[in-house]
Amino acid sequence: MRIAALQARGPDRDLVRIAAAATTAADRGADVLVVPELFVGGYDPAAFPGPDETLLPRLQDLAARQGVALVAAEPEGDPPAITAVVLAGDGTVSGRYRKTHLYGPAERAAFVPGDGDRFVVAIGGLRCGVAVCYDVEFPEVVRGLALAGAEVVLVPTALDDPAVSRVLVPARAMENRVGLAYADHVGPGFCGGSVIAGPDGRARARAGAVADAVLVADVTRDDLDRARAGADYLADRRPETYR
Amino acid sequence: MRIAALQARGPDRDLVRIAAAATTAADRGADVLVVPELFVGGYDPAAFPGPDETLLPRLQDLAARQGVALVAAEPEGDPPAITAVVLAGDGTVSGRYRKTHLYGPAERAAFVPGDGDRFVVAIGGLRCGVAVCYDVEFPEVVRGLALAGAEVVLVPTALDDPAVSRVLVPARAMENRVGLAYADHVGPGFCGGSVIAGPDGRARARAGAVADAVLVADVTRDDLDRARAGADYLADRRPETYR
Repeated sequence: MRIAALQARGPDRDLVRIAAAATTAADRGADVLVVPELFVGGYDPAAFPGPDETLLPRLQDLAARQGVALVAAEPEGDPPAITAVVLAGDGTVSGRYRKTHLYGPAERAAFVPGDGDRFVVAIGGLRCGVAVCYDVEFPEVVRGLALAGAEVVLVPTALDDPAVSRVLVPARAMENRVGLAYADHVGPGFCGGSVIAGPDGRARARAGAVADAVLVADVTRDDLDRARAGADYLADRRPETYR
Repeated sequence: MRIAALQARGPDRDLVRIAAAATTAADRGADVLVVPELFVGGYDPAAFPGPDETLLPRLQDLAARQGVALVAAEPEGDPPAITAVVLAGDGTVSGRYRKTHLYGPAERAAFVPGDGDRFVVAIGGLRCGVAVCYDVEFPEVVRGLALAGAEVVLVPTALDDPAVSRVLVPARAMENRVGLAYADHVGPGFCGGSVIAGPDGRARARAGAVADAVLVADVTRDDLDRARAGADYLADRRPETYR
């Protein structure tokens, strides 16, 4: 499976940056493009955007035009939740996930949290799950996805603490033997550091702190098998001792 | 709290290396010294040592003589478990923890696993828990200790994969906002890389791959408070969504 992750400056209301990244992703043979959290409407704690009814068809059109699956997390619902929508390469909706761990008082005032319902969908031959930003800092979330069968976890984010991208994200990939793509904003209030990590915990691609980037990296079944041959964490768990 | 962690080559049957490290730890004002896993009898998958009845009194004498608490994980019981014993600075036994996740067929043939019973004991003014080697690679273990009140986790280990020390150990500290000391062997079959990580996920002290070392670093209540002010993971968990 070939994964692309967009790191750029939002908002992107007319989708020019997402469209350009989707073209790059398609040119490079990527199966999916992950977009930062609240990238279209902008991540602004002083004035979070509301749901935009026109957005989903525009994203569907874009995915279908490039034949690339798309993961974007934007406001949906009334009251709104930060909702990651996974679009298949033909533009159809594969699944929705609502961010379960809202970060800080501004997010909690503007959005309702999800209840942790998860889904796993095949993209590029591997089973993919989704989490959003602060969710991935909790080992329980990615573990839950891995136990539900996810081999790759796709994460739109809006991050200001580089330690999360440097320390926690590679650990989530390694401890679950999954691939993990983490797509962040750049610009004031954001730290960049988008990364695609392999199941061995190594970064396959990593962006800097300030520059725009479309990261592209492969995660294959061979990678998963090789990592699990070293230590097979899911098999070696002892849940009866986790009280 | 000041933590010391010994990285050295085992076995150390006459405790000369542990005694020297305890002297260093005491000289530098450390509250506790963490010793690698199966360091006294030697970590040898071809012939793991059996329990040594003379060991506990010798370690107690050593702790009391230096006034330094001691954490050592050696075989105890019949059948034997890899058992971390925490000795207070007066030599009394503060607690015992049996390694819950045995690594690989050789360990599983030689030892019985613990059932995950955990304890937390005050050392140097902070609440300390214990895990052993492979245990710490499972986020559930350190999370369980943190939820039980541990502010610092002390981990004897015998490691051959540097990614564990580089990727997983700092993440365990950061995601639980605890200090974590990880004391490894050096020599054939081991990768060193012992580390004392702070609750921000940064290494306060880190040893190289091959050299002996006595790492010494502080973890204070201020460190814990400062890290939690950034993101308070234990408070922000949503266990009702972790199915």
